[in-house]
Amino acid sequence: MQESNQNQAPKRTDVNSLGEFGLIEHLTKHSKLRHASSFKGIGDDAAVLDYGGKPIVVSTDILAEGIHFDLMYSPLKHLGYKSVVVNVSDIYAMNAIPKQITVSLAISNRFSVEALEELYAGIEAACNFYNVDLVGGDTTSSNKGLFISITAIGEGNKDTLAYRSGAKEGDILCVTGDLGAAYLGLQILEREKQIYLSNPGVQPDLGTNDYVIGRQLKPEARKDMIETFIPKADFVPTSMIDISDGLASELFHICQQSSVGAILNEGGVPIRTDVQQIAIDFKLDPITCALSGGEDYELLFTVNPEDLDKVRYMPDIYICGEMVNAKDGVKLHTKGGNIHPLKAQGWVHFGNQ
Amino acid sequence: MQESNQNQAPKRTDVNSLGEFGLIEHLTKHSKLRHASSFKGIGDDAAVLDYGGKPIVVSTDILAEGIHFDLMYSPLKHLGYKSVVVNVSDIYAMNAIPKQITVSLAISNRFSVEALEELYAGIEAACNFYNVDLVGGDTTSSNKGLFISITAIGEGNKDTLAYRSGAKEGDILCVTGDLGAAYLGLQILEREKQIYLSNPGVQPDLGTNDYVIGRQLKPEARKDMIETFIPKADFVPTSMIDISDGLASELFHICQQSSVGAILNEGGVPIRTDVQQIAIDFKLDPITCALSGGEDYELLFTVNPEDLDKVRYMPDIYICGEMVNAKDGVKLHTKGGNIHPLKAQGWVHFGNQ
Repeated sequence: MQESNQNQAPKRTDVNSLGEFGLIEHLTKHSKLRHASSFKGIGDDAAVLDYGGKPIVVSTDILAEGIHFDLMYSPLKHLGYKSVVVNVSDIYAMNAIPKQITVSLAISNRFSVEALEELYAGIEAACNFYNVDLVGGDTTSSNKGLFISITAIGEGNKDTLAYRSGAKEGDILCVTGDLGAAYLGLQILEREKQIYLSNPGVQPDLGTNDYVIGRQLKPEARKDMIETFIPKADFVPTSMIDISDGLASELFHICQQSSVGAILNEGGVPIRTDVQQIAIDFKLDPITCALSGGEDYELLFTVNPEDLDKVRYMPDIYICGEMVNAKDGVKLHTKGGNIHPLKAQGWVHFGNQ
Repeated sequence: MQESNQNQAPKRTDVNSLGEFGLIEHLTKHSKLRHASSFKGIGDDAAVLDYGGKPIVVSTDILAEGIHFDLMYSPLKHLGYKSVVVNVSDIYAMNAIPKQITVSLAISNRFSVEALEELYAGIEAACNFYNVDLVGGDTTSSNKGLFISITAIGEGNKDTLAYRSGAKEGDILCVTGDLGAAYLGLQILEREKQIYLSNPGVQPDLGTNDYVIGRQLKPEARKDMIETFIPKADFVPTSMIDISDGLASELFHICQQSSVGAILNEGGVPIRTDVQQIAIDFKLDPITCALSGGEDYELLFTVNPEDLDKVRYMPDIYICGEMVNAKDGVKLHTKGGNIHPLKAQGWVHFGNQ
């Protein structure tokens, strides 16, 4: 009877040394696809399966208490809603329509049936809004903490699926909505949590920060873009990804998988004025919040320059750069006119440990 | 800033009061299916999706450290293998063929890259044996413990899918393989763990219990039955379920969802002689281990009596009862000739808390 780790070779590499993406890549490098039905495997926002009908898009995410959410300030209903949103966002990022989800929970016994009803009320609300069916799941106990694992399944069309790998030199880089707010919402919630912990009598001062707090606690995925605006404008993004880890990190994914470089124009990155002000109040650079904050669940995509006129006047879409030759790297063109290499600095969950 | 649970109504119902199945049913009772592609939702071994090609079968399971496995005696490679097995078993239980899996992990920082390589080596070995592709996943950190959430996707045929709900009065009840061994393997591992904990110098005495320990640590799903023997015998089970929670509990699922009763013949329940002896050594009734032990991952199914000759002489399939009218309930016909009501007593994870 021995601790299984003692069976290993003495070498012990810390998972932090690889980072999340490096770790997945390292662990799955021997993995090969055997079936024709496995059209696209690991490495995009979702896998693509071909079972003879429409292409099926599958994505999965696991959310862990204390890592992805803090029940001190995340109401369970919002948390249920957000868990669905982060998953359907991956389906939209393939230019596909989410149709089903499965939900697996591991819950410690501090959760009552009533608490779980709240969580499921949020899941149901998101299912209603995003028009997806809850078709399965599993519920078990955990010794400590709440874990929510959701798999989302969606429907695509062969001709309109958007991968991370399709960007070409000369393509225009676009982003939806506005960035940085979810990260700043988290900063405010964390600040108020610390104040509360040191003096539980104090009521939280969330001020006039409803927008950024809402973006953190109850984000939305861009259903409107994928189901309405982009089809109506009649173009197909050459590549697409959702912004869960920050604009910079996502842009690197597109560049790496498309074998291109990019010039990102700081002036084209959409950040609301009130959000910029909150960043400054926190002594943070607004563009850093947009580049590295994450959790905005907006879409970053590229379009063929021939489609430029189709996107130029679309509501809530912003042109923020251009794809260039891979040898030119990934660069930020600042408002001050400087051009310097962009750094990818998304959420490093393992680094938090 | 308040603890979210404090926002709830004062009522606090313990999740134990509903049990795992009652809890899922309670939480998802408002859930409705909107899409034609959601052919079959919650309530079977897997959901069935119809995207215009072959029916797609989807199942998901989450395994939690300290609940489903103990790393004191589960080597990580075996654990990875078993996590895949429990999922593909659900696909087989639909009379479908598993094709893809996604794997989501939440891991605490006590796991090294080398430890995760072991886990993935087991996952890969199972992918090879069961001929499934690893097409996606997510890896994150957890504050405590290891959680493995796997979604399996398979391919069925409209005419041959087997649901829990198709059993008819007069159908013959059959079971594959042998039962009770995985539960007894667990008892031995737990006994040796306790001895080790009270005296770490003692080496484990696993005796000649390789079979039952193997059934616990590295079970197999019945790929052979679904891919070879049943198609070759040319019949379709009228209902089917895999035995993860114990024969009794699974039989209740079939009876409830098919609106029938059952008479289970104790003499027809396959238990190996050596396994019976181990049960007796543990002062356990062998039939109780088979009925309530669980984790055997064998298949329990019903066949139309017209197909009886097709199954009667099949290897490793045992006729163990008959489906009767629902008003006659679910009964055990003992070897001693008594007939008494069967009790469902599967793994109650929440009860362990």
